[in-house]
Amino acid sequence: MKAARFYGQGDVRIDDIPEPKLKEGQVLVEIEWGGICGSDLHEYLKGPLVIPTEQRPHPISGESLPVVLCHEFCGRIASVPAGGLKGAGGEELREGMKVMVDPRLNCRSCNACVEMRSTNICGSWGFLGLSGGGGGFAERSAVRADMLYSLPDDMDLTNVALIEPLAVGRRAITQSGIPADGWADKSVLVLGGGPIGVAVLHNLKAFGVTKMYVSEPTTLRQEQLQGLATQVFSPMKVKVAEECRKLTDGLGVDVVIDCAGVGPAMRDGMDALRRKGTYINVAGWETPFELPMQFSMFKELVVRFTMAYDDADFADTVKDFVAGKYKGAEKMVTSRIAIEDIKEEGFEQLVKHKDKHVKILATPKKELLV
Amino acid sequence: MKAARFYGQGDVRIDDIPEPKLKEGQVLVEIEWGGICGSDLHEYLKGPLVIPTEQRPHPISGESLPVVLCHEFCGRIASVPAGGLKGAGGEELREGMKVMVDPRLNCRSCNACVEMRSTNICGSWGFLGLSGGGGGFAERSAVRADMLYSLPDDMDLTNVALIEPLAVGRRAITQSGIPADGWADKSVLVLGGGPIGVAVLHNLKAFGVTKMYVSEPTTLRQEQLQGLATQVFSPMKVKVAEECRKLTDGLGVDVVIDCAGVGPAMRDGMDALRRKGTYINVAGWETPFELPMQFSMFKELVVRFTMAYDDADFADTVKDFVAGKYKGAEKMVTSRIAIEDIKEEGFEQLVKHKDKHVKILATPKKELLV
Repeated sequence: MKAARFYGQGDVRIDDIPEPKLKEGQVLVEIEWGGICGSDLHEYLKGPLVIPTEQRPHPISGESLPVVLCHEFCGRIASVPAGGLKGAGGEELREGMKVMVDPRLNCRSCNACVEMRSTNICGSWGFLGLSGGGGGFAERSAVRADMLYSLPDDMDLTNVALIEPLAVGRRAITQSGIPADGWADKSVLVLGGGPIGVAVLHNLKAFGVTKMYVSEPTTLRQEQLQGLATQVFSPMKVKVAEECRKLTDGLGVDVVIDCAGVGPAMRDGMDALRRKGTYINVAGWETPFELPMQFSMFKELVVRFTMAYDDADFADTVKDFVAGKYKGAEKMVTSRIAIEDIKEEGFEQLVKHKDKHVKILATPKKELLV
Repeated sequence: MKAARFYGQGDVRIDDIPEPKLKEGQVLVEIEWGGICGSDLHEYLKGPLVIPTEQRPHPISGESLPVVLCHEFCGRIASVPAGGLKGAGGEELREGMKVMVDPRLNCRSCNACVEMRSTNICGSWGFLGLSGGGGGFAERSAVRADMLYSLPDDMDLTNVALIEPLAVGRRAITQSGIPADGWADKSVLVLGGGPIGVAVLHNLKAFGVTKMYVSEPTTLRQEQLQGLATQVFSPMKVKVAEECRKLTDGLGVDVVIDCAGVGPAMRDGMDALRRKGTYINVAGWETPFELPMQFSMFKELVVRFTMAYDDADFADTVKDFVAGKYKGAEKMVTSRIAIEDIKEEGFEQLVKHKDKHVKILATPKKELLV
């Protein structure tokens, strides 16, 4: 079957690879749509970073380069092994069912997975589409049944892959240390209006936040954020921290959520925070993360980090997506392509025309491109 | 009167200065003992840092270089203005009363001081002994009455100045995000066994913690920590994070408290933390604070910062000190000198013989040196 595989920096190829063989507990998924994630782009530009190499194969998949790409994907069940298997919600899986994939690999036996119930920080964490074991830029993928979320039969799969970045955004909220019922009265500055920034904003909206500010330098993204964010700042044109203070009686924002991962934005955010405020980093960083002590210490800030999402975050995101609570998130899709074009129309577009794209979705089924 | 004043890097002089003039709400304190703090040493080596200069006088004291040094000090009330004044506990102050000074300057009118009740992060924060307005390395100092904690008449003042660093250590506990009744079952790694590290350990003990590990490179300090810490690691000889994991079923410690403020110790601490563990920085840093993302993100760590102490921390520390709960803390005093000798026997000793000293106390009353 056809698959887009990563071989190394800038090297993504369309290969003809063998059909996936089902391991115990797995079902076969026929893929419809998959998204390119910021971490895929990090790999394309500077990788292999997280992607396993021959020297360090992934402890769960046992695989290394080349790997099938894409960890944000959905499709339909192509086959279930004899005897049947249950999905994440405990439902009996059947052929033809529409499903969203929770792509995480984890051991389900370590302290993090079992005692802490934090499967996202498993000592052997990984992702389908990054760590081997299959992925979404292929015709089919073998997926553990309990990582499949079945969807209503009448659900349109066109934007379902967005559930994955939305779950990443949701974790900023569930791991903030702020109780779920304490979010509505918070003022929040989101750094970066890319896919994860947008995903965070949709979650903030779902949690009732009304003061949502965004710092985003590119024009297209600024435009896309109109109507979603309360206020959009261009960090090249205004002093973001000062603007935030103007909007918060001179005090600064309660929470900063970093979806940018660059020094200047982070320093703006630390400056914009009120005393005892909370900074949450969701972003991957390519440069050193150097905390400005004049803010963190003299304001007694709290700095937290999130890593993907856990079972509950993903399950809740699927539920809310199906219920229509993320309406409007589909606007972040700026292009739809065939997986054959993933290098030129996918990665290279994101590199060369960053300001024209937020999220690119790809499909192995050309008939879906209308 | 005699006072030790800071003029600039390496420049501390014994001056004859005018007697303090009492402002409204102040009483005159006759000083007995004061301690040299790590931040004084930072100033001596690299200052003026926090100490105000002519270009930026302190907003509350209005003063700038030269300033009287020492913010850890105690003494007796020399005079109370007509009409009387009340101390921090609401008690009527009277001449001859033994008192410990809360040396902080704050405006008592901003959002931090009033609404947040966090007088330590007041926008105009400062300290007697650093920011002008007097200080402990002098014969007398004018102090706001409500910053004075009166002590029992039979209290020995010899070690009372230690209350100030003990309050700094206490704040690591009160601001950790860990409830007061949740500390006993925590395993804690303290980075640095200097005065603040020791102060933190005494507080941990008071909070019932039984697994207290310390990483400290110098021999004298290592010896001093025996009997107080559960285990003392020499970071030059062992891998601190690995040792911590050995002692915690392979999981790592729950909490790291940084009283060192140097990169290698911080990285050891981040490595030693268990998943979702809490890192608390109490230290001042002279080098950039660069967070290692492989620990902070992949373990979803929480990083917190503390700044001195607030009213409640100080009041509780005084109460517990009087009640004898910090017994043994006096061992950190490695030398007692006259303020006239503060440069050579104080600062220079701390610079040249760091491994021989923890806390040096100085007095303007030579008769107290026996």
